[in-house]
Amino acid sequence: MSASEHLVTVMADAVAAFRVLRRSSRSDRARWLTAAADALDADADELTAIAERETHLPEARLRGELLRTTNQLRFFSDVVTDGAYLEATIDHPDPSATPPIPDLRRMLVPIGPVAVFAASNFPFAFSVAGGDTASALAAGNPVIVKIHPGHPELSHRVADRMRTALIEAGAPSGILATVEGRADATALVLHPDTAAVGFTGSIPGGRALFDLATSRPTPIPFYGELGSLNPVVITSDALAERRAVLVEGLVGSFTLGAGQFCTKPGLVFVPRGSGFAVDVAAAAGAVAPQRMLMDRIHDGFRSGAAALSAQPGVVRVEDPHTPAREEDDGQTPLVFSADTAALRADDSVVREECFGPAVVVIEHDGEADLIDAITRLPGGLTATLHAADGEAAHLGTLVAALEDSAGRVLFGGWPTGVAVAWSQHHGGPYPATTSLFTSVGATAIRRFLRPLAFQTAPDAMLPVELRDAPAGIPRRIDGVLRLG
Amino acid sequence: MSASEHLVTVMADAVAAFRVLRRSSRSDRARWLTAAADALDADADELTAIAERETHLPEARLRGELLRTTNQLRFFSDVVTDGAYLEATIDHPDPSATPPIPDLRRMLVPIGPVAVFAASNFPFAFSVAGGDTASALAAGNPVIVKIHPGHPELSHRVADRMRTALIEAGAPSGILATVEGRADATALVLHPDTAAVGFTGSIPGGRALFDLATSRPTPIPFYGELGSLNPVVITSDALAERRAVLVEGLVGSFTLGAGQFCTKPGLVFVPRGSGFAVDVAAAAGAVAPQRMLMDRIHDGFRSGAAALSAQPGVVRVEDPHTPAREEDDGQTPLVFSADTAALRADDSVVREECFGPAVVVIEHDGEADLIDAITRLPGGLTATLHAADGEAAHLGTLVAALEDSAGRVLFGGWPTGVAVAWSQHHGGPYPATTSLFTSVGATAIRRFLRPLAFQTAPDAMLPVELRDAPAGIPRRIDGVLRLG
Repeated sequence: MSASEHLVTVMADAVAAFRVLRRSSRSDRARWLTAAADALDADADELTAIAERETHLPEARLRGELLRTTNQLRFFSDVVTDGAYLEATIDHPDPSATPPIPDLRRMLVPIGPVAVFAASNFPFAFSVAGGDTASALAAGNPVIVKIHPGHPELSHRVADRMRTALIEAGAPSGILATVEGRADATALVLHPDTAAVGFTGSIPGGRALFDLATSRPTPIPFYGELGSLNPVVITSDALAERRAVLVEGLVGSFTLGAGQFCTKPGLVFVPRGSGFAVDVAAAAGAVAPQRMLMDRIHDGFRSGAAALSAQPGVVRVEDPHTPAREEDDGQTPLVFSADTAALRADDSVVREECFGPAVVVIEHDGEADLIDAITRLPGGLTATLHAADGEAAHLGTLVAALEDSAGRVLFGGWPTGVAVAWSQHHGGPYPATTSLFTSVGATAIRRFLRPLAFQTAPDAMLPVELRDAPAGIPRRIDGVLRLG
Repeated sequence: MSASEHLVTVMADAVAAFRVLRRSSRSDRARWLTAAADALDADADELTAIAERETHLPEARLRGELLRTTNQLRFFSDVVTDGAYLEATIDHPDPSATPPIPDLRRMLVPIGPVAVFAASNFPFAFSVAGGDTASALAAGNPVIVKIHPGHPELSHRVADRMRTALIEAGAPSGILATVEGRADATALVLHPDTAAVGFTGSIPGGRALFDLATSRPTPIPFYGELGSLNPVVITSDALAERRAVLVEGLVGSFTLGAGQFCTKPGLVFVPRGSGFAVDVAAAAGAVAPQRMLMDRIHDGFRSGAAALSAQPGVVRVEDPHTPAREEDDGQTPLVFSADTAALRADDSVVREECFGPAVVVIEHDGEADLIDAITRLPGGLTATLHAADGEAAHLGTLVAALEDSAGRVLFGGWPTGVAVAWSQHHGGPYPATTSLFTSVGATAIRRFLRPLAFQTAPDAMLPVELRDAPAGIPRRIDGVLRLG
């Protein structure tokens, strides 16, 4: 598919902006990001109202998500100011080394125009002003967002506010733009000036774009976050210790936001005969139907649930005490029960994400059966262990299997709720992500940087962070890390 | 192609070894690497003799290369001991954040069995015991090397010595193995237990394997270093200042090791009418013919040289004073001259690497013409500027173009000779590499690690580097980087 005239213009503007951005100072970029955050916060009422109308998510959630998003912009302002992300390294000459070391200095520099594919389920935090955009801008790259059709008015409004704030703060005019539609989405990934892609969405859609990005004459990195089952393991001792709390916590987590989170716990492993699924179904019966983001997503959920119901060995668990309800446009939470044999079956849909308020409770026959089942799961963003107090220390093999399967391992708690922090890792083995990187947290910036080494460069030709004078950032000098 | 029984066994052993390695301590791995280095050094005489016979490279070069290789193993021992490469990060809970921050700790962990494709041209430094192997082992991964057919005896001998030393030092027996042949090479990349691939070789071979790695049901990272033109720009002021030194330096660099370096300067840009190519040809005439690594590589060089000669606008420059010589099995250096029009031609072979002792001197018509030509080059490992004293400061646009084109920019000097250092970056835009990483220097280790976050983990369940007690390594705690 060929690019629209709009995309051609947008990419030319991005290339022009990059010529300015690649020489921009860290302090300028930190200021721009803060200005963008302030501008979005100032329009919180209007933006939240549009988001509510377009996504059917509740106002309180949307206000919290907007604040998370603007705090994320401010967080990347801090990351840029801190400067450790540059990995600045200086080696003075050492003629005695084999081979000799010349004056050699290395740091990370921005890669160029970044394409960002917005997600449906976080209209602020994983959309136009979300983590991919924040980290790409912080690194010094222009961003072209392919907006999600689930919230087009919000996307344009956020982009306008953000672009205006960035430009008023001094950024070049081509720093941020949007495109929409399938043809431009494809053209954006294939455009020779696109340097990298950030993506949050489905496995089939993400894989198709990953394949496009890697099959280009000049392949580019494709940072996709595609899908995750987020298994939870609950031991019999944990059930004995706090069964009611676990039921309540699980129902809260898998129904939050109508289950439309990439970290929704989709599978829960319990010992056979624990009766846990029945308790979960009873508690889930008290959750009111919720309207999903889009009809297309609701249809996808219904198909996924139907496929689960149709699979031999999988049973829908319904609470006999829950009165039948008028669903209107809403979706009530669904609880399924299965055993590990159903998970092991060829083409088992139990191993596929069902995006929405559904959970499959899987009964296992002891630790060996459980660990074998865990190793058969596709890679995930998270894996959670609920053990009794002090019990985890005796579950080393299980914990190792959970660590192998995911990017974040939780000991207690629930995987929904992804903190924006220095330590966050929101990624994991394929298909959770298509790379070894995170899309949330400080190190998300590394995706949009490339190393550049300078050999025997005159001091004035070096970026300020690599000159002889102190740069006020952590640097490794002649092998020794120094703080400033 | 299906895997041989040997490969099946080797991969099973690697998977078993990884279960041990993933829990190995940094101090153990540092010791293993040093033991391997010492063992190879102890056999320097024998190994050098085999290498000389198999590669036709001179003894002094091979002895230097072996020392570089063992020092590289020791360097990665230092990198592991230093521990900063783990990116250890600890966030204590902050319930006031939006969203709240739980106890969250992140570090890099090894990814699993790594496949390494050895290169022809560095029988030690980019082969069985080379940088890919050293960095993958340092990270805590088992390595399976696909040996290069150019030096099979040496490869097996080095692997035996290294494996024995590693195991005697305490490493698990499946830590290092070799495979050979096309069928197993393909099967290795496609094997479900292979977690990543390191590759040094040609563009067509590397791209084919990259395509395999990315088209797997579960794609894996393919770190390929494929090819580079390593352009050198010499200004008229630099020529005026030190013409003879530049001629001598260039000839030394492009004929070193019969030009069989990935950093060989293949293109040299000079102002039109400078007569530089004639001087280079005269100096190159004094270089004795050198035998190339393999007949296949020599044939490839002859084809590349013939294609250059056949391209309109490209002229072979021969020195009239150089007597005709008996070449036997050797190859005399070749000098070509062209202008930027020849470089711009569709399918110009001037834009392709000619692996061996050849250089193309390109005459340009001023800065705009030069910069345009640079921007048309494929991505490279290096780009070099020879300017007169103080002149570089006035060449900002040219320097920016060079920075965009390569991973290492040299101000003076020559690109051959790749120091093993903290600051090294041996990588660059495609096709120089297929990733944003280096294959030489401290950060090469990052290729074979993945982030893992622990949420609310009991202290005893954490890797020692993430526990509350001081770990003696740099860590970021609650946003503040601390040295130890």
